[in-house]
Amino acid sequence: MSAADVTGRLAQAAGSVSKDRLWRRHLEMSRIGATGRGGLNRLALTPEDGQAQALIAGWAAARGYTTTRDAAGNVFIRREGSRPDAPAVMTGSHLDSQPNGGCFDGTYGVLAGFEVLEALDDAGIATPHPIEVVAWMNEEGSRFVPGAMGSAAFTGFLPLQDVLEKKDAAGVTVREALARIDGSTPLAARAPGPPPAAYVEAHIEQGPILESRGDTIGVVTGIQGIRRFAVEVLGEEGHAGTTPRASRKDALSAAVALISALERLTADAEDQVRFTVGRMAVEPNSPNTIPGKVTFSIDLRHPSKDLLARTGDLIHATVSEVAASRRVDAKVQDISFVAPTTFLPLVPEAVRSAASAEGLPHHVLPSGAGHDAMHLSRICPTGMVFIPCLNGRSHTEVESATPEDLFAGARVLARVIAELALQSC
Amino acid sequence: MSAADVTGRLAQAAGSVSKDRLWRRHLEMSRIGATGRGGLNRLALTPEDGQAQALIAGWAAARGYTTTRDAAGNVFIRREGSRPDAPAVMTGSHLDSQPNGGCFDGTYGVLAGFEVLEALDDAGIATPHPIEVVAWMNEEGSRFVPGAMGSAAFTGFLPLQDVLEKKDAAGVTVREALARIDGSTPLAARAPGPPPAAYVEAHIEQGPILESRGDTIGVVTGIQGIRRFAVEVLGEEGHAGTTPRASRKDALSAAVALISALERLTADAEDQVRFTVGRMAVEPNSPNTIPGKVTFSIDLRHPSKDLLARTGDLIHATVSEVAASRRVDAKVQDISFVAPTTFLPLVPEAVRSAASAEGLPHHVLPSGAGHDAMHLSRICPTGMVFIPCLNGRSHTEVESATPEDLFAGARVLARVIAELALQSC
Repeated sequence: MSAADVTGRLAQAAGSVSKDRLWRRHLEMSRIGATGRGGLNRLALTPEDGQAQALIAGWAAARGYTTTRDAAGNVFIRREGSRPDAPAVMTGSHLDSQPNGGCFDGTYGVLAGFEVLEALDDAGIATPHPIEVVAWMNEEGSRFVPGAMGSAAFTGFLPLQDVLEKKDAAGVTVREALARIDGSTPLAARAPGPPPAAYVEAHIEQGPILESRGDTIGVVTGIQGIRRFAVEVLGEEGHAGTTPRASRKDALSAAVALISALERLTADAEDQVRFTVGRMAVEPNSPNTIPGKVTFSIDLRHPSKDLLARTGDLIHATVSEVAASRRVDAKVQDISFVAPTTFLPLVPEAVRSAASAEGLPHHVLPSGAGHDAMHLSRICPTGMVFIPCLNGRSHTEVESATPEDLFAGARVLARVIAELALQSC
Repeated sequence: MSAADVTGRLAQAAGSVSKDRLWRRHLEMSRIGATGRGGLNRLALTPEDGQAQALIAGWAAARGYTTTRDAAGNVFIRREGSRPDAPAVMTGSHLDSQPNGGCFDGTYGVLAGFEVLEALDDAGIATPHPIEVVAWMNEEGSRFVPGAMGSAAFTGFLPLQDVLEKKDAAGVTVREALARIDGSTPLAARAPGPPPAAYVEAHIEQGPILESRGDTIGVVTGIQGIRRFAVEVLGEEGHAGTTPRASRKDALSAAVALISALERLTADAEDQVRFTVGRMAVEPNSPNTIPGKVTFSIDLRHPSKDLLARTGDLIHATVSEVAASRRVDAKVQDISFVAPTTFLPLVPEAVRSAASAEGLPHHVLPSGAGHDAMHLSRICPTGMVFIPCLNGRSHTEVESATPEDLFAGARVLARVIAELALQSC
């Protein structure tokens, strides 16, 4: 196929994306697990999750696509390619939600992928590569820990048997929950196949950057790394009325000084370091007792592994220094260090080029949140397409995205998927 | 009686105080409600509280003193004066403890008072005024709220009927608990009488000032005032990974800035202002979510009412300012304002003079903690005698005081009580 032919097909694919159909699918899907307050409660492998899978499998059947479920509970909708033994170009995200989640986190990536399949059909475009739309199992990690469990099993990052033994809060294993959903929403079993040719995930940004810049498309370069720490500050309980300031070993006052110092330490001019103290516990937590113990969490994220390593070391040093000056004991425990993911240039380049071709303002950025794409990037060229969400909010019932932005992201996705799937095998 | 005679009697009274007897009484009393870890769990009007009352009533009977209980559950041991219709000089404290309290808080004041009665007997000193040793009901406020309830009822600060209707966590009223203790530890009923001629309370300091100065006796001038506030900071929840610093409305980060500013505001060179944030709650309190709401308590104490009024106003202003600069909403709620108590000079002067006469290093200071003396000061000349406690600790099982300091405080108390009780009616 000539370069001009390809360019024409990509425009046709994007031109066949239907804004109304895509929005209608979102409305239908958002009824399953609806909280009644505009949000979703559709935890992984619950009856609601099964209903969501059944809904999209029904749409797939109407188009002649096959829907299968693998041993880890991931669901695949396959549009065959002209060379069926070729590796699939894969796109998708997840259909499970947080307990008080929104209607777009995950769902958009699955429905935008499905829209691309329909758009290619409507445009009469056949591709050498098959295209698979996937809904990964338990991305949110709200029912089973850890999140992104289905994609971790798919890529071999976590052994399947380990994943199947994970339990929810009620003691139900993934294996048992999968058996139930296999019973209520039976799908053909998916046989293991070759790694995907590429993976592209569309998602709401879950942050405010695109919205504040006025950009419609985020060209995602990778996923930033995360370090987590737990800090324990040990002072000495005392009577709030009788203990002079000079005699106090106030664990809360020291924690306040520690957090102030850590905020100064991590404040960068570029505003790229994400430093969050999200959890704090005070003991004995009584208004008239000087706190004897405070524990707090640190969540530190950045796209650079070096910066995370360096800043993590400085956190240890800063806590020691401030604690000594406040005459308390403080220790920092390293909880986890997930290195940043950097996508190979192939897919991000295709996303950037598609956004340009569609005339959409775009911005190159790393993902602040974790996604299944993190695991996929270990086995194939991977990338993501971000669209803005209202006020950058996600994991809340007020999460919102506009039909226009959903449409724009799907057009970009259609171009990228078509370009990848049209490549000769 | 000549001035020289009085001086001689006071020396005799102090000279008859027995260090060993006083210490032995503390050991005996500390077995009732012992936690097994060196502390006490002897909540008000429990069977243990009744046993403690029975123990001292037994000692009183052996000396020929009468023990009575008033309608509010306060227990009085009376050594008659030569003019029985004269108002009593009263001394004492309380026998109830915190759930994990120490063996000296309250108990010392009762046992030191009882020691004074015995010392006067041993010295053969009769006084015109009767002397009463009192154990006030529920000073700690651990079982029934508020604390110092018995002395509040005695002085008319709280109506007796209101006090009797207060309930503990299990729903038992003071009235019911009193009926039980009247059954298990019956005492003669105390008829209402005239207000006391004076009230003197011996107590451990519950703070580190005397110990750090190397002083043995605290001449207490009054009880500092307390203002309590509740602060609520409303930010906006957000994803810890995706939200840049500039877009955050982090309620915890704002609370940290607020507390830092309030610490600067209340830091005085004299180290007399007591500013404590003892309680804090964070929502949703999840390590990877930017906190949307933080509430915290403020406990502010000082001997000057004006300073408390002024500083309280500045707290409101400071919170507003800092909240605006952090783009969060914050409101300060005034919870309570208990004005400082200033004792009339009579008793503090007597305490200072007694400490000098005993050659004991002493320091003039306000009480940081609340005491029954606060209520008594409304109806009669009042004062307190403080002694040091180990590391200033109280309301904990490690609370400790030395036999020498208990002895020194009782000698001072003996002089003060004798001086007051020898005065002509």
